[in-house]
Amino acid sequence: MTPEIDAKVRASFARQTMMTTLGAELLDLGKGTARIAAPILPGSRQQQDAGHAALTFAIGDSAAGYAALTLFEPDDEIMTVEMKINLLRPAVGDRLIAEGRVIKPGARITVVQADVFAETDGVRKQVAILQGTMIPVTQSPQ
Amino acid sequence: MTPEIDAKVRASFARQTMMTTLGAELLDLGKGTARIAAPILPGSRQQQDAGHAALTFAIGDSAAGYAALTLFEPDDEIMTVEMKINLLRPAVGDRLIAEGRVIKPGARITVVQADVFAETDGVRKQVAILQGTMIPVTQSPQ
Amino acid sequence: MTPEIDAKVRASFARQTMMTTLGAELLDLGKGTARIAAPILPGSRQQQDAGHAALTFAIGDSAAGYAALTLFEPDDEIMTVEMKINLLRPAVGDRLIAEGRVIKPGARITVVQADVFAETDGVRKQVAILQGTMIPVTQSPQ
Amino acid sequence: MTPEIDAKVRASFARQTMMTTLGAELLDLGKGTARIAAPILPGSRQQQDAGHAALTFAIGDSAAGYAALTLFEPDDEIMTVEMKINLLRPAVGDRLIAEGRVIKPGARITVVQADVFAETDGVRKQVAILQGTMIPVTQSPQ
Repeated sequence: MTPEIDAKVRASFARQTMMTTLGAELLDLGKGTARIAAPILPGSRQQQDAGHAALTFAIGDSAAGYAALTLFEPDDEIMTVEMKINLLRPAVGDRLIAEGRVIKPGARITVVQADVFAETDGVRKQVAILQGTMIPVTQSPQ
Repeated sequence: MTPEIDAKVRASFARQTMMTTLGAELLDLGKGTARIAAPILPGSRQQQDAGHAALTFAIGDSAAGYAALTLFEPDDEIMTVEMKINLLRPAVGDRLIAEGRVIKPGARITVVQADVFAETDGVRKQVAILQGTMIPVTQSPQ
Repeated sequence: MTPEIDAKVRASFARQTMMTTLGAELLDLGKGTARIAAPILPGSRQQQDAGHAALTFAIGDSAAGYAALTLFEPDDEIMTVEMKINLLRPAVGDRLIAEGRVIKPGARITVVQADVFAETDGVRKQVAILQGTMIPVTQSPQ
Repeated sequence: MTPEIDAKVRASFARQTMMTTLGAELLDLGKGTARIAAPILPGSRQQQDAGHAALTFAIGDSAAGYAALTLFEPDDEIMTVEMKINLLRPAVGDRLIAEGRVIKPGARITVVQADVFAETDGVRKQVAILQGTMIPVTQSPQ
């Protein structure tokens, strides 16, 4: 992955105000991989005080999408076509970590997965798996 | 739907701090249906300034879950087992509206769907469809 | 829908040998809709003698795909990118009927849904819902 | 895995007449894993002569389900609640091989994944990934 791609992905992440709202942080990037962490903020909870499914979805979907974006040209953007999430256990812990990866890149369709973990005192428990589809967009889609 | 169930669902919604963070509002409830609206806040955007997929997911998933909760006993809670979202177009407009409904209720498994629309000057365009599974939980799950 | 499209879809269906193996029949086509029926043959069962999930998937996925194909040019073919199925109850009855429909057509991505019913003595019970993505292909894809 | 569980899973597979129709074979079982192979029979094709998506789904779903069944009591049966498949490339080759695994077992909900490969002259290409939910049933479900 070139420094240009690295900078492009980080700039895109920084423009996602939802990531800022959730306190999410882009940990690291590789060719076809991305890791994002987020605390379980007081404002990100469900009714039983665990992290909301939308928080888990948000960082899982974004990790998968940015994993895909590392494989595209500097001018391309990526959009989620569809995403499926299975929740394994309540999102309880010090923070959540999402690991996204590309299963099959493609000019038309890129298939991705992500795992999301809850970390407590350095011990991780898996809280979700995601599987979905990304497409490149060269300009604002309609 | 009894007033007791109506009050229970609204209290559960009020405890979801993520809904408050996103500015979401529970519009109305029926037997097996729920509608939730949310503005596209400055802090809920993706990198191209449309509503983030996690916002659309958040209100679609919650509308589907609360639709299910209307059919359960006052002591029950509901948890998302899995949810699949297909995004149809960017979430651009004055606000988003999610309509959840139960396709098949069940003591073990409840199957749900939701549609999410973007409303601009009173005109609605569909931005997403969701299909998923809810299960009842009688106490905090592990 | 022109007679040319109608003939094209029926010819494509006839080339799917899996449909013949399962005894499936293309009932009718509309603009963005398709209906397929199949008996629950002795060779299409799961371990408890109900119709196999793959039978339900087969006609649901095909009904959704052919619903999409009715909206494309005569030279186009359609391919399933991804499909999600929720099974509501065992597939037991005289025959299964799948109703596919296009939720949002598109040159790059077409989003579809299907319902599958089991019919017994003319009474239908819903056994599955499907939600997925189709893409057009102009020649054999790689 | 006890010999009793091994025998139970193989007997269940043998009762699935759909597996016989598709020529599928249960290759091997482990604790939480199962592998199934199937040829791309003349009667299992889609309109462009590749293996039908329903064939890929059939062995992927069954490999995931039998992976789950290896973790349950001898009297239990397993049922697919929902399954999502992403198709990566056309199913072309000498045979398909599905590898199912349990991601998280549970008394109420078991989350599974499967990979499906097409093998040609001993070389494998991945054609699909699946992610879904199984539940145990102690008797014929309603």
